[in-house]
Amino acid sequence: MAKKLWEKNFEINKEIERFTVGRDRELDLHLAKYDVLGSMAHITMLESIGLITDDELKLLLRELKHIYAVCEKEQFVIEDGIEDVHSQVELMLTRKLGDIGKKIHSGRSRNDQVLVDLKLFTRHELKDIAILTKALFDTLIRKSDRHKDVLMPGYTHLQVAMPSSFGLWFGAYAESLADDMLFLQAAYRMTNRNPLGSAAGYGSSFPLNRTMTTSLLGFDTMDYNVVYAQMGRGKTERNVAFAMATIAGTIAKLAFDACMFNSQNFAFVRLPDECTTGSSIMPHKKNPDVFELIRAKSNKLQSLPQQIMLIMNNLPVGYFRDLQIIKEVFIPAFDELKDCLKMTGYIIERMEVNEHILDSCTYDLMFSVEEVNRLAAEGMPFRDAYKKVGLDIEAGRFTPDKHIRHTHEGSIGNLMNEKIQALMETTMEGFHFDSMEEAEKRLLED
Amino acid sequence: MAKKLWEKNFEINKEIERFTVGRDRELDLHLAKYDVLGSMAHITMLESIGLITDDELKLLLRELKHIYAVCEKEQFVIEDGIEDVHSQVELMLTRKLGDIGKKIHSGRSRNDQVLVDLKLFTRHELKDIAILTKALFDTLIRKSDRHKDVLMPGYTHLQVAMPSSFGLWFGAYAESLADDMLFLQAAYRMTNRNPLGSAAGYGSSFPLNRTMTTSLLGFDTMDYNVVYAQMGRGKTERNVAFAMATIAGTIAKLAFDACMFNSQNFAFVRLPDECTTGSSIMPHKKNPDVFELIRAKSNKLQSLPQQIMLIMNNLPVGYFRDLQIIKEVFIPAFDELKDCLKMTGYIIERMEVNEHILDSCTYDLMFSVEEVNRLAAEGMPFRDAYKKVGLDIEAGRFTPDKHIRHTHEGSIGNLMNEKIQALMETTMEGFHFDSMEEAEKRLLED
Amino acid sequence: MAKKLWEKNFEINKEIERFTVGRDRELDLHLAKYDVLGSMAHITMLESIGLITDDELKLLLRELKHIYAVCEKEQFVIEDGIEDVHSQVELMLTRKLGDIGKKIHSGRSRNDQVLVDLKLFTRHELKDIAILTKALFDTLIRKSDRHKDVLMPGYTHLQVAMPSSFGLWFGAYAESLADDMLFLQAAYRMTNRNPLGSAAGYGSSFPLNRTMTTSLLGFDTMDYNVVYAQMGRGKTERNVAFAMATIAGTIAKLAFDACMFNSQNFAFVRLPDECTTGSSIMPHKKNPDVFELIRAKSNKLQSLPQQIMLIMNNLPVGYFRDLQIIKEVFIPAFDELKDCLKMTGYIIERMEVNEHILDSCTYDLMFSVEEVNRLAAEGMPFRDAYKKVGLDIEAGRFTPDKHIRHTHEGSIGNLMNEKIQALMETTMEGFHFDSMEEAEKRLLED
Amino acid sequence: MAKKLWEKNFEINKEIERFTVGRDRELDLHLAKYDVLGSMAHITMLESIGLITDDELKLLLRELKHIYAVCEKEQFVIEDGIEDVHSQVELMLTRKLGDIGKKIHSGRSRNDQVLVDLKLFTRHELKDIAILTKALFDTLIRKSDRHKDVLMPGYTHLQVAMPSSFGLWFGAYAESLADDMLFLQAAYRMTNRNPLGSAAGYGSSFPLNRTMTTSLLGFDTMDYNVVYAQMGRGKTERNVAFAMATIAGTIAKLAFDACMFNSQNFAFVRLPDECTTGSSIMPHKKNPDVFELIRAKSNKLQSLPQQIMLIMNNLPVGYFRDLQIIKEVFIPAFDELKDCLKMTGYIIERMEVNEHILDSCTYDLMFSVEEVNRLAAEGMPFRDAYKKVGLDIEAGRFTPDKHIRHTHEGSIGNLMNEKIQALMETTMEGFHFDSMEEAEKRLLED
Repeated sequence: MAKKLWEKNFEINKEIERFTVGRDRELDLHLAKYDVLGSMAHITMLESIGLITDDELKLLLRELKHIYAVCEKEQFVIEDGIEDVHSQVELMLTRKLGDIGKKIHSGRSRNDQVLVDLKLFTRHELKDIAILTKALFDTLIRKSDRHKDVLMPGYTHLQVAMPSSFGLWFGAYAESLADDMLFLQAAYRMTNRNPLGSAAGYGSSFPLNRTMTTSLLGFDTMDYNVVYAQMGRGKTERNVAFAMATIAGTIAKLAFDACMFNSQNFAFVRLPDECTTGSSIMPHKKNPDVFELIRAKSNKLQSLPQQIMLIMNNLPVGYFRDLQIIKEVFIPAFDELKDCLKMTGYIIERMEVNEHILDSCTYDLMFSVEEVNRLAAEGMPFRDAYKKVGLDIEAGRFTPDKHIRHTHEGSIGNLMNEKIQALMETTMEGFHFDSMEEAEKRLLED
Repeated sequence: MAKKLWEKNFEINKEIERFTVGRDRELDLHLAKYDVLGSMAHITMLESIGLITDDELKLLLRELKHIYAVCEKEQFVIEDGIEDVHSQVELMLTRKLGDIGKKIHSGRSRNDQVLVDLKLFTRHELKDIAILTKALFDTLIRKSDRHKDVLMPGYTHLQVAMPSSFGLWFGAYAESLADDMLFLQAAYRMTNRNPLGSAAGYGSSFPLNRTMTTSLLGFDTMDYNVVYAQMGRGKTERNVAFAMATIAGTIAKLAFDACMFNSQNFAFVRLPDECTTGSSIMPHKKNPDVFELIRAKSNKLQSLPQQIMLIMNNLPVGYFRDLQIIKEVFIPAFDELKDCLKMTGYIIERMEVNEHILDSCTYDLMFSVEEVNRLAAEGMPFRDAYKKVGLDIEAGRFTPDKHIRHTHEGSIGNLMNEKIQALMETTMEGFHFDSMEEAEKRLLED
Repeated sequence: MAKKLWEKNFEINKEIERFTVGRDRELDLHLAKYDVLGSMAHITMLESIGLITDDELKLLLRELKHIYAVCEKEQFVIEDGIEDVHSQVELMLTRKLGDIGKKIHSGRSRNDQVLVDLKLFTRHELKDIAILTKALFDTLIRKSDRHKDVLMPGYTHLQVAMPSSFGLWFGAYAESLADDMLFLQAAYRMTNRNPLGSAAGYGSSFPLNRTMTTSLLGFDTMDYNVVYAQMGRGKTERNVAFAMATIAGTIAKLAFDACMFNSQNFAFVRLPDECTTGSSIMPHKKNPDVFELIRAKSNKLQSLPQQIMLIMNNLPVGYFRDLQIIKEVFIPAFDELKDCLKMTGYIIERMEVNEHILDSCTYDLMFSVEEVNRLAAEGMPFRDAYKKVGLDIEAGRFTPDKHIRHTHEGSIGNLMNEKIQALMETTMEGFHFDSMEEAEKRLLED
Repeated sequence: MAKKLWEKNFEINKEIERFTVGRDRELDLHLAKYDVLGSMAHITMLESIGLITDDELKLLLRELKHIYAVCEKEQFVIEDGIEDVHSQVELMLTRKLGDIGKKIHSGRSRNDQVLVDLKLFTRHELKDIAILTKALFDTLIRKSDRHKDVLMPGYTHLQVAMPSSFGLWFGAYAESLADDMLFLQAAYRMTNRNPLGSAAGYGSSFPLNRTMTTSLLGFDTMDYNVVYAQMGRGKTERNVAFAMATIAGTIAKLAFDACMFNSQNFAFVRLPDECTTGSSIMPHKKNPDVFELIRAKSNKLQSLPQQIMLIMNNLPVGYFRDLQIIKEVFIPAFDELKDCLKMTGYIIERMEVNEHILDSCTYDLMFSVEEVNRLAAEGMPFRDAYKKVGLDIEAGRFTPDKHIRHTHEGSIGNLMNEKIQALMETTMEGFHFDSMEEAEKRLLED
């Protein structure tokens, strides 16, 4: 069968090439800037150990900075017939500089080159994710503060249970993001280590100065062991995916709530018109399409760690081409999460809350526990209070006092949003994004 | 059909009870100690706000300490007909103290009681995992140092590629564990927050002092928002499972390598006899059963986050009974991972490495790159060197120089194990296990 | 560390044994009956090719039938110190028959023995699942027929959209189960093949008659290729898990709906009291605990295929001890699914539906499309009809005609339950459970 | 933050549109042909119940056939600003036919339109998968027959265990595909049912003739219950993904074996040069890139069911926009699997096997069991034979007789490939692809 499909050698080879290149040419565009930065650090180090001359270094750096500028303008392209970003950069250098262009590969293998590209790319993406998560967090805190006095029913088992508030509801998701950030930071730390110099995963016989490239690229430290540097491929992606999955989990849950609260059976919130679809003869219908898509995309993101695991699991030590396929699911995930974070922030900012939910008698009985506690606080033995309220309800005599007096930490009257904000700030500071930014700036300016 | 199965009411109810209790009675034994600790902190706080008297507190604390001691002796049992640990503890208290025993429930719901039990349990388990991971790390570093001069082939694509060493191989897995620890710490921080006082997830009308219970139990901070405190159920388990999965991933990969290297086709390592099975007429056969089981158990652990996700995903805000089922897969996971860590450490410690691997000519060609670099370093133009070595190989004239001179950071001659150790130490210190231990000790001693 | 833990050899070996035996002794109880059946078929064949004598066969069969009877009475135990079911059966035989007892192992390996045990066990479990699924199906059809005239709102995006009915709702889940059964049957066919005779996965030098054991055990056919017979381990479990997951998916969705419809915000259904929990001062509260547990257990089951995949993935050809761990998650899954099927049937049977949902004006507008179509059918141009209804709604003049006239196949007035039933019957007949039952009966009676 | 990002309304709406349209325009190209076919059947039925005139039908059919022809030439495009395939088809019709073009929507909703498109698309893709799987099966059987006498070591625990053969190895994977086909057929049956007429999931007040569209489109039957028809969205994709995952699992395992057997440590097979990459100074290196990519892509495919589950799980009854996201992972999966099947067939066809593996003494001891059995068959008591062979091995006197005499069904000397082929043929016939093909042909020809 295969024979019939590709009768001529030409076609066979074209098919095999298509299969092996896969989506690399498209995905590698995300890595171009970082490939250039990695090469700049690498050759600066090569010059320091005498593997290229000072003049060669200057020429190469000038051209690489030029290519970086092309990337910045989003004009970098991988030409037809060129397999990936590394080949394209080399091609651009040799067109200008001849054989000198090839010197960027001394003391390096394709393996550690991809590794460093992915690390630099990922740390930038994680920074973006952190900033967007913080922005959504701020929006949620603002909404929590603004609506802190608007009560809503609190459910257990989706049964009306206890008084809650929009202050609590918005604030809960803010605090959830603050916790998610801990995992994002663990992922960032693991990422922000230098694999350069590990070559094909077993080091090099050249006296490379890995400490120097670590410093030039502003990495926290290096992936010391060269075998581990290579082993980090796939593992880094999986763990970064864990961190993204926890944020995605928070957003998906928020979206689920919002879609449900937007149903006529709840009518707790009103979503911005531009984020819903409707029908002129069903004016009651406000389909929360955008939030549903956010939920679905976030749930898809939650499956990412498992997907990466299935690709990399039970592979022995050392590089395998399998790892290339991880890029297909890993690289686009950042834009997907960033989109979800932005859209969620947009909707939350504009979401209107229903201030009259509790007018419906559906929710009256959730005040019964409050009433028991009130009577008990006034001195009536707890059991008597409990019995009295039970009898009142049975007799239809129960009139809820809808004024809620919860005062303890984290409750309706005492949201502690400033504490949650402090938690978030502390974690944000722990990233030290400035050190990577300064290093990259220095490298480009020198 | 259902009708036929349970003809009498008695049986129906028994079946429903069996179904709803599930494995709770068995799993809750793991929580008993922590249930007692949580109650001790809770009532101490209740006394401080006047909800129980000083005398009642003393009586209750005395009995709770007694129950704690029973737990320590592994003599705590959940009696027949008692649903779970909380009911059993209450039963023991009321047997001794009558109605005073019931006062431990004031200002608390079953929901935040389970939450605090799970948090206290989990932080202890995470501490154990951290210590055992550190122990395995130490073993790996020791082996790396000991065999730092024993060369082995380095593979890419499972093709013989470059010289590597047992020093590198053991060290790589040590460094992998050092990175895994970052996620374990994120999980620990998220866990080490006080949910007590969140009641059913919407707080309480009593003026609870949550700061006080946070301090008494030695939590880093509280889960501030009470809705979030409840939302942490399931989410905490999932994220802790992430952290365990990354460690399990490292172990599984190590086990895969070791099983493969133990094959006659490699013969790189010899596993301890007590961890292999064989056959008297196939004396060559050393089936690495223990490492295979470690691998399988670790791979099973890697599926845990996804399993928890599938249970909790797309549930709206608020408690659901669904969360109970997570305990079935979450609680046993700790013992499984601890077993794997111990067994791996045991085997690695005793694993013998083959010092004569490179005697076989199978591996000669992996020195070809070294030779090219050596000639280049001696002044021959790289291309000529490359060509010469290629021709020598073709002509069968290539004799590898098996003395390897890699000197850069993280390579064969410069493992940097002390740097990797420093990394691990820093992370270990960041846990601050002492503060939880001291708080618990204080609570039990007071 | 490891050293400290197990200072004496005795303890080491005990620990290793505990680790390697794992939960086998407990899980193997499920396999005992089938181990006996497999051995009976095997030795009958051995006698036919002259490897044991007719007298030996008679003695062995007599004892094996006795052990089978012990299993039937649930009195089979694996004695202390005995590793698994196979060793226990052999022990029982040798106690009675001396060395003849060991002859059951000629021409067989532990590998194909476990394989055949698992296959026989699994086909019985699949039969039970099929019967219980059919029973739940029947219950759903009955409820669909009974409540075919009770309207309820139909939602899209959880927005009130169109009239639906309880007839449609119950019937939809019945039809879902009918489709699920296709996968159960694929799983059954794959399972119902004879691996016996594959030995350790490479066959035997004895002239075994595999056709004979295939027929004696009532398998559809054999796993022909002996390497594939062994490769079926893990794969069979994964694919059976797929089939269970699709049924579990249907149940989980049904449970989700029911829990939501049981909320005060819907109040569409009333669950039987013995399957809910409540509170005397919150009499409105009917927590649907049993359905939540069904949902969670079913969702857990849905993760089973992935769990098995992670264990078996990327293992090369041939047996590995890893496969043992699959039993831990696979064997208990059947009871879990059977429990869920039974409990769901029990609740559905007793679930009361609210016949007055549509009294609420919340749902009036879902009749607007009906009205447009009615006017159009009466001759008014569609656009004019649409406009008129839109204006009526806007002006508050719209009075819905709640009499629904859907007549086409599968709609409110024409449920086609008999067609769905015919579909289910056809699939049920395709299993041919009788052939396995008759073969086993014959084997035990002979 | 969100505010800053999208300062003007125009940009907001553009961003929201981009987010909601997602990859629909690109993915929908796969559905265009089927959208046309579905519309043709739908309007033919509409005419039969008097909802459009005979003349309108003729005009519409003529244009739809024209659009179908455009699709066949791969010239169908979704124009800028057009949201999806359905809108594009309508646009093309109204351009030609004015308002008549809109009549294709009477008695139909976007929901059942997408459903029928996906069903028609999927059944075609499943047919392609079936044919390619059969082609790979044939290649494997051919190779198995061709190399039936070439022995290779059989492993358990990756330990050399027993003699095996390439005949067995190739044949095992063929039989694995034959089993996989059972699930593909279950998926095909579930898919091959008509959802048309279910409208938005609750049917229509028009007297649609669903039996007629079922027959026109050549579906086996209809999704009877209209609520179930909608519930099939997501569920169908998940179950089809199950079926693809089992095939992918077989391929991934085959690829793993082949990559390992291609290692210098095994040297069992030689892969075609155009499917490997190498190095001139490491001529021994034949990196099996293509097979590694096949493995990774197949492993990625194995995660597809779980991915779909995470998106659709715990959504209540009725349509949600979430389901759109499933298309992103579902539609491309077919091409990925087809590519893998083709590439695998290509390599397997050209893979050379090493006929001299057993010359190495590494594998001598795997004949020890054979020798024991041979002596036993010659009359020596089994224990004596076993002891003699053991002593011979110990003394270095063991000379294996490498002539293997396995004769039973499925063993080295009796592969039973014709039986495996018969199994495959029977399953292939069970698909009845001709009925869908004939119906579509009839529809287009009429």
